[in-house]
Amino acid sequence: MASELGEFGRISRFLVPLAAGAPGALGLTDDAALIAVPPGQTLVVTADALVEGVHFLAGDPPDLIGRKLLRCNLSDLAAMAAVPLGYLMTMALPARCDDAWVERFAAGLAADQAEFGIDLLGGDSVSTPGPITLSVTAFGRVATGREVRRRGARPGDIVYVSGTIGDGALGLLAATGRLFGLDPEDRDYLADRYRLPRPRLALGAALGGIASALMDISDGLVGDLDHLAEVSGVAAVIDATKLPLSPAATTLLAEEVGQIETVLTGGDDYELLFTAAPDADIAACSAAGGVPVTAIGRIEAGAGVRVLDRDGGDLPLARRGYRHG
Amino acid sequence: MASELGEFGRISRFLVPLAAGAPGALGLTDDAALIAVPPGQTLVVTADALVEGVHFLAGDPPDLIGRKLLRCNLSDLAAMAAVPLGYLMTMALPARCDDAWVERFAAGLAADQAEFGIDLLGGDSVSTPGPITLSVTAFGRVATGREVRRRGARPGDIVYVSGTIGDGALGLLAATGRLFGLDPEDRDYLADRYRLPRPRLALGAALGGIASALMDISDGLVGDLDHLAEVSGVAAVIDATKLPLSPAATTLLAEEVGQIETVLTGGDDYELLFTAAPDADIAACSAAGGVPVTAIGRIEAGAGVRVLDRDGGDLPLARRGYRHG
Repeated sequence: MASELGEFGRISRFLVPLAAGAPGALGLTDDAALIAVPPGQTLVVTADALVEGVHFLAGDPPDLIGRKLLRCNLSDLAAMAAVPLGYLMTMALPARCDDAWVERFAAGLAADQAEFGIDLLGGDSVSTPGPITLSVTAFGRVATGREVRRRGARPGDIVYVSGTIGDGALGLLAATGRLFGLDPEDRDYLADRYRLPRPRLALGAALGGIASALMDISDGLVGDLDHLAEVSGVAAVIDATKLPLSPAATTLLAEEVGQIETVLTGGDDYELLFTAAPDADIAACSAAGGVPVTAIGRIEAGAGVRVLDRDGGDLPLARRGYRHG
Repeated sequence: MASELGEFGRISRFLVPLAAGAPGALGLTDDAALIAVPPGQTLVVTADALVEGVHFLAGDPPDLIGRKLLRCNLSDLAAMAAVPLGYLMTMALPARCDDAWVERFAAGLAADQAEFGIDLLGGDSVSTPGPITLSVTAFGRVATGREVRRRGARPGDIVYVSGTIGDGALGLLAATGRLFGLDPEDRDYLADRYRLPRPRLALGAALGGIASALMDISDGLVGDLDHLAEVSGVAAVIDATKLPLSPAATTLLAEEVGQIETVLTGGDDYELLFTAAPDADIAACSAAGGVPVTAIGRIEAGAGVRVLDRDGGDLPLARRGYRHG
């Protein structure tokens, strides 16, 4: 490894400070970490891996890579209505990641630890002859029985999404120079949404015990809604004209009508997708979560997902969802 | 990915069955998994990553890779005196890992799940242009306060190891055709010890509340004992003539005296290294753990590790410990 500090030096210099706030991390000096789960709470655990060139771009700023790594996992906790507790991380780094790279990567983690109130609990740091490969296991807690799963949608429920849809997938196009006809500000806005997801933790926690089904949108709205409908044993119908779009996406769609398919099926939004009974007070959850929530459709008996266009007809979709592969 | 089944097909065919025994895995259909921790128990968590060509050999049988991946992590749980509960796994696989590879890999995991009484709880499966890169987070439980850390060694304590020392590092030499002068049976024995660690879970659990300091030997006896001594604020003196050696290692050392350094500083043993007061009933722990335990030295005031040779002099060591890098 092209490191002045060596593996142990890097850990003590850049990673041990990330664990300083968590007594259970044991200063990263032991074989494992300890988590005390309060009575009446269930532990929620999730793991996501990011590979350079697959989930982020070679040359992306190291601090943003660290933040995206954490946020993808925190979004999964939000999708179970959980409050984050901490995380373990394994890093496989090629020799070209020097000490300065690790320092900036750790600075990104530190910034998000402060923002989301979590600490590093442990992990592993190894070398690789291949691309940067990162894995995080995030821990959260939820009052036992208040977790929300994907499979609770019932006919008559309303389908909601948080924030705006499509910015992640359009942002990938923007970040890789494949979006034209937008001014630089709009392109930068979209690229930032690709590089830095916003996990909807406060909204997720507010939806505990209220939403009937809940998940985050990581593989594309239509594909993810298809999963939710399938495990719930129901059908979903959404109205393309009701999709909440950012100003940048609105501008783009006015010029390139075909990008509606990117919005509907592209990945990396990390917004929440959920269903609730018509009388549920979703406005209060939106206020508690600090993010707009939009009703985009309804749950029906049957199977599959239909997308209605402005004339009420079915919008045909070539791709059903984005797959990282 | 060179897969007939695709990512979702692989997950449902090969991974969902690995989660069938764990209700909290939610059938791998949700964003996260649930772990209920019984009252009075603390959750123990650890994560290790394995990279092809660094931690296992390109071309190693997929089932053995899966088993080594699990066992490295289970060894860390043993090193905290914890009982395993389950695990999350992230896999980054290159296209050459076809469905048959994944099937054999999953078969290895299934065999070890049955042996150690654990289930897959969740994870992530992604593609990579690089080497096979695997990460596991293992969960265990320990009665609150009975966990054993590395930092409790006190002057006067005895230093113990389980099983035999050096087989992992000698096994790497054997598996890569760098050991001569042994008959094929001995070489196969050593290579198997490299490829398939034996996590000492029963011994670890028996040492809860009895050992004063405990860790597993993954980076080499001397280097790991150095860590234990450092965080405990003590010195350790071990007697090279007391090291428990397998018959294969004994035969080899009779012919190649210099390999004593490999035994002392090589990695991948995954035996337990621990200290205990002279009056502790370690024989009972050994019996409960089903593995021999050998006293190899003592803890003194001071700092660092000394290794005494057969004449009572200090054995000089060029390498202090093995680093995977």
